Amino acid sequence: MSEAHLEYVLGIDIGGTNLVVGAVRRDGGAVIGDHSHPTEPSRGPDAIVSDLEEMSRHTIGLVEASGGHVVGLGVGAPGPLDTARGVVLLTPNLGWVDMPLRDRLAEATGLRTALDNDANCAILGEAWVGAARGARFAIGMTIGTGIGGGIVLDGRLHHGAADCAGEIGHVTIEMNGRRCGCGNYGCLEAYASGPAIAVRAVEQLRLGADSVLDALVDGNHDRVTAQTVFAAAHDGDELAMEVVRDTARYLGTGVANLLNIFNPDLFVIVGGVTQAGDALFEPLQREVARRAFKPAVESCRIVPGALGGLAGVYGAARVFLNAESSAPH
Amino acid sequence: MSEAHLEYVLGIDIGGTNLVVGAVRRDGGAVIGDHSHPTEPSRGPDAIVSDLEEMSRHTIGLVEASGGHVVGLGVGAPGPLDTARGVVLLTPNLGWVDMPLRDRLAEATGLRTALDNDANCAILGEAWVGAARGARFAIGMTIGTGIGGGIVLDGRLHHGAADCAGEIGHVTIEMNGRRCGCGNYGCLEAYASGPAIAVRAVEQLRLGADSVLDALVDGNHDRVTAQTVFAAAHDGDELAMEVVRDTARYLGTGVANLLNIFNPDLFVIVGGVTQAGDALFEPLQREVARRAFKPAVESCRIVPGALGGLAGVYGAARVFLNAESSAPH
Repeated sequence: MSEAHLEYVLGIDIGGTNLVVGAVRRDGGAVIGDHSHPTEPSRGPDAIVSDLEEMSRHTIGLVEASGGHVVGLGVGAPGPLDTARGVVLLTPNLGWVDMPLRDRLAEATGLRTALDNDANCAILGEAWVGAARGARFAIGMTIGTGIGGGIVLDGRLHHGAADCAGEIGHVTIEMNGRRCGCGNYGCLEAYASGPAIAVRAVEQLRLGADSVLDALVDGNHDRVTAQTVFAAAHDGDELAMEVVRDTARYLGTGVANLLNIFNPDLFVIVGGVTQAGDALFEPLQREVARRAFKPAVESCRIVPGALGGLAGVYGAARVFLNAESSAPH
Repeated sequence: MSEAHLEYVLGIDIGGTNLVVGAVRRDGGAVIGDHSHPTEPSRGPDAIVSDLEEMSRHTIGLVEASGGHVVGLGVGAPGPLDTARGVVLLTPNLGWVDMPLRDRLAEATGLRTALDNDANCAILGEAWVGAARGARFAIGMTIGTGIGGGIVLDGRLHHGAADCAGEIGHVTIEMNGRRCGCGNYGCLEAYASGPAIAVRAVEQLRLGADSVLDALVDGNHDRVTAQTVFAAAHDGDELAMEVVRDTARYLGTGVANLLNIFNPDLFVIVGGVTQAGDALFEPLQREVARRAFKPAVESCRIVPGALGGLAGVYGAARVFLNAESSAPH
């Protein structure tokens, strides 16, 4: 039997922008060969799976070259999923319909494989070795193209009755508010996802507000992103600062809702917007304190993720380890 | 050792309107001497505790007269609580400040005693022997003077990091909405508690809307209650029917939020408003279907409670049994 410190689990994170693959040591203490590759849906649904297979084999080779070996594979994918069958049901961004991702990767690598939701993986990674390590009840929010989440109770994900728990971006915060991509009105995601932040800034620009954003995108409003908004706010632009403050209020409302429902001891926020740092987190914390019950606020730390782009890789590896430990022997 | 079917647990439910005490058989299969007494805060904080002590001794006598005996006591009280110390921290309605309720009742009865939140007790009762029996992940909402809730995972309450999980009446559904008694704006409770239902009806009456409600309360708007609104709606009154439909939309939004976050297999709603039946539940279910994700909707039954005014008594008894089974022996 091999020594545990030479055992690795392959973790795969399938993002809208990048595919990331790395081999995580069984104790979470090291990663070999974290490797990122652009997600290229234009090449077709099969090309993405081929890329993942290729990246996996390459990473396995790196682990073996270092004297280790890979014992399993975990993969985080955008949902909805059928985790029991290991199938990604529908992911329009990637062109996937009923993609049997688990079995495809298992065949390509010869490894036992487990599949979970991408947001769940990111939060589980943070709970394992990141900012939520040691928390008993951790809630996580992933902010990117959409807003997702994960609920970790005593080190394990809460999946719910049909594997779809944790859709915290689709909590209604304004009953008659903005239309959301999900078809509902007033979801948190419709206000505070990356694209929603850009949309709110552009609405202000079109009303004629004066802002350096115009210059930053050469007058082409289609090029405004959450990143440009945060950059302009960092430089003191009034319009951008207001958009960031509003974003913090929306996110704070969503976080406060979860504190009142769940009373977690840790709330971790991951994704690009956390790079805004205190400019976002300070007004967010104020909004939470204004809306949530005092004991719920006082018992919960609200922190940015600590693993950056590797949270999903760590979490995917942990998904495999959790599945392994609960499987019949 | 006594036979289990002769063992009873005293359950006490402290409501804003009534104090209810009953002895629940250890298997949940029977109740002896469920006894209700008006809550009379005007007689002072100590008088309520004296009433509870008196009702408890009376019920213990009934159990013993039937050949059984009482092995413990559970009590559900309005929060906030410090369950570790067994203290009700602050309940303005009852005039209680730092009331050591657990120890007072334990001394009066000679029984080991456990304390929990009243809404938690009602939901735990429904999960034990009522409408949520057999559910794996059950969420419950109690609608009365306020809106509370409870989260039951695998038969046990989720209390959270500081014992304040389940405050589902204080989820923001309108960020800039009505002021809530808790100090926040736009909480579900500010729209759909009993008093909030009455307030919304009276607002319409004051705008001059034509309604039988005026006659039902002899023109005295202070006498409008959720009950009168539901009665008028039942009789086909347009204004009252609109208030009920709006109530269903608010509640449906709150329920949908919890389905997207938690993906429970059962959602139970308890309290007086459930007597409105389909007039409330049908539009509520439609609102949930409109807002929550399809797999979350399809995997969850939304039902009224089955235990009526005894849910809290059953649940309080179960709180004692759960505490007993997790205590060191």
